[in-house]
Amino acid sequence: MLKTLIMAGGKGTRFWPVSTEQNPKQYTKLFSDQSLLQATLSRLSKVSQKDEIYIVTVENQLALAKEQGASFMAENNIILEPEGRNTAPCIFYGLLRLLHDGHSPDSVVAVLPSDHVILDEAGFADTLDTAAKIARGSNKLVTIGIKPNIPHTGYGYIEKGSPIGDGHIVLSFKEKPNQETAREYINTGNFLWNAGMFIAPISLLLQEFEQHAPVYSQFKDELMNSLNTNKGLKAVYTKLPKDSIDYAVLEKSKNVAVVEAKFDWNDLGSWDALEDVVEKHNENVIAASEAFRQIDSNDNIIFAPGKKVSLIGVDNLVIVSHGDEIMVLPKSSAQRVKELSAKDS
Amino acid sequence: MLKTLIMAGGKGTRFWPVSTEQNPKQYTKLFSDQSLLQATLSRLSKVSQKDEIYIVTVENQLALAKEQGASFMAENNIILEPEGRNTAPCIFYGLLRLLHDGHSPDSVVAVLPSDHVILDEAGFADTLDTAAKIARGSNKLVTIGIKPNIPHTGYGYIEKGSPIGDGHIVLSFKEKPNQETAREYINTGNFLWNAGMFIAPISLLLQEFEQHAPVYSQFKDELMNSLNTNKGLKAVYTKLPKDSIDYAVLEKSKNVAVVEAKFDWNDLGSWDALEDVVEKHNENVIAASEAFRQIDSNDNIIFAPGKKVSLIGVDNLVIVSHGDEIMVLPKSSAQRVKELSAKDS
Repeated sequence: MLKTLIMAGGKGTRFWPVSTEQNPKQYTKLFSDQSLLQATLSRLSKVSQKDEIYIVTVENQLALAKEQGASFMAENNIILEPEGRNTAPCIFYGLLRLLHDGHSPDSVVAVLPSDHVILDEAGFADTLDTAAKIARGSNKLVTIGIKPNIPHTGYGYIEKGSPIGDGHIVLSFKEKPNQETAREYINTGNFLWNAGMFIAPISLLLQEFEQHAPVYSQFKDELMNSLNTNKGLKAVYTKLPKDSIDYAVLEKSKNVAVVEAKFDWNDLGSWDALEDVVEKHNENVIAASEAFRQIDSNDNIIFAPGKKVSLIGVDNLVIVSHGDEIMVLPKSSAQRVKELSAKDS
Repeated sequence: MLKTLIMAGGKGTRFWPVSTEQNPKQYTKLFSDQSLLQATLSRLSKVSQKDEIYIVTVENQLALAKEQGASFMAENNIILEPEGRNTAPCIFYGLLRLLHDGHSPDSVVAVLPSDHVILDEAGFADTLDTAAKIARGSNKLVTIGIKPNIPHTGYGYIEKGSPIGDGHIVLSFKEKPNQETAREYINTGNFLWNAGMFIAPISLLLQEFEQHAPVYSQFKDELMNSLNTNKGLKAVYTKLPKDSIDYAVLEKSKNVAVVEAKFDWNDLGSWDALEDVVEKHNENVIAASEAFRQIDSNDNIIFAPGKKVSLIGVDNLVIVSHGDEIMVLPKSSAQRVKELSAKDS
């Protein structure tokens, strides 16, 4: 089965007041009794064994990660970053930890975010299987691409080349485009969204680090030593350059393939995204509430666990109740929530 | 000083979910730490002695009335109606109770609602004093009229005649007019709103009952007997016709005067009325909240005691949090709250 490395150290506060620096998005239960991390772990149960699943996180999220991971994975498999330094150091260190724990360099690892919504678990497992076959059979870094349905300017794009297995060789990675360019990408039919998921043999990933980001490889022995002695990690980790895996490795590698996702996907960028993943009830999107009543009110998004919400004559609002916080805004202002969370600190 | 009879048995649920049948509007603390009833009692402290103040209410409000009245009035002065039967029976019975308690029939009584907002306590006392002088000196029923500032179609109007003391003889009472008629009333300068407050000698009020609503007088002995024996009230009270004091007595009497209020007045008909009695803070009307933050949000009304409310880009909403209820609506829909409170029962 697959090894998996889940990146769960992010500080997603776009779902303020529910998600905060102390309780980032991946640990929040936004529309079910599972947090986004728990849902991620749950759908991996068909893909990986408990002792093959690793979470990378930071100190102030350790308790949450342990608690929420408890029934899905081996407790020892939570990897602590001394501090968040973007994805490249996190993945490099995670790979070394897998080797240190006895996993073979020939094994294939899936590197996955912890806070995306994927409801089709079978399609997810099927896609990972397709990707793993290419990774193993052709020794490739295989990214998962999402078929674009709108010319979104908030995602990077992946350009497909010639077929390989049930996927394609990657011709290029494109940064977040403007609207016009995004439209062109979609019209060609050759572009997929980069969802930040990829699958590769551990050995290949380390080789690609060595070739394209040798600065990390030069700390390999020090990092391994800290794993063996359980000492000195912080001193070496904070020397690793802050960089994303995309910039450091994937965009430079000549060995990247892409498989198109056979599942729904939503990265829940803001409160308004809940209407894409929660079915309407009584004309409105009730992500959470104890009871809900409305008169002439449509297309509102309600997150108010334990509360009875009543609406009269309002449309397209987001209404959030969490602890002693209440927030009201139009869906169209959902991106501005960060202005409030910023005021908070 | 004045005797006062405060009518506090109403079931005002227009401030649902805060006001309910179990906790009617007069007992709610809508924008200060005093309920509307307590504010009414508080401003009477300059007008009446504690043992001159009476509250008429019903059984299921007794505990609330006692608790809220405790520091303002004699505990025994809460008069229990066996059931709400509109104002005429309530006032007739209240007058008999005052006589039974030893107050002279020559004394002057102010009959007042319990749930209106009057912030100018000095102006209020001054107006009552003016009215009491006419009531005593000329043996009149003296109503308090509110100078209209808009052609409101929700109030009755009082037509002023020739002067008497610092007031006027009442020529006629007009029922709630249509918009055009209301405009005409205002243009003449001779009309005031009927705010449901009046002052009269007890003896005159009883005479007017006898003349214009003799059906009540015919139960006078039975009611007095029940007061003396503390028995049989319900049997006789439920025989008193349901009627308002306006229809039963005031509109028929030839002895009615009116004094123009020298104070602000608001009967708080619905949530949107809070903006008339609460000053704006941070561009919005914060009737109650633990904390409030807004971005590009104006003229909203917030009632959320103990809650921290954050708004982004919304205007003219009413946002209410009470217990586990949360309600959101535009101010323009404030009259529709009764549709929700009706659903509740």
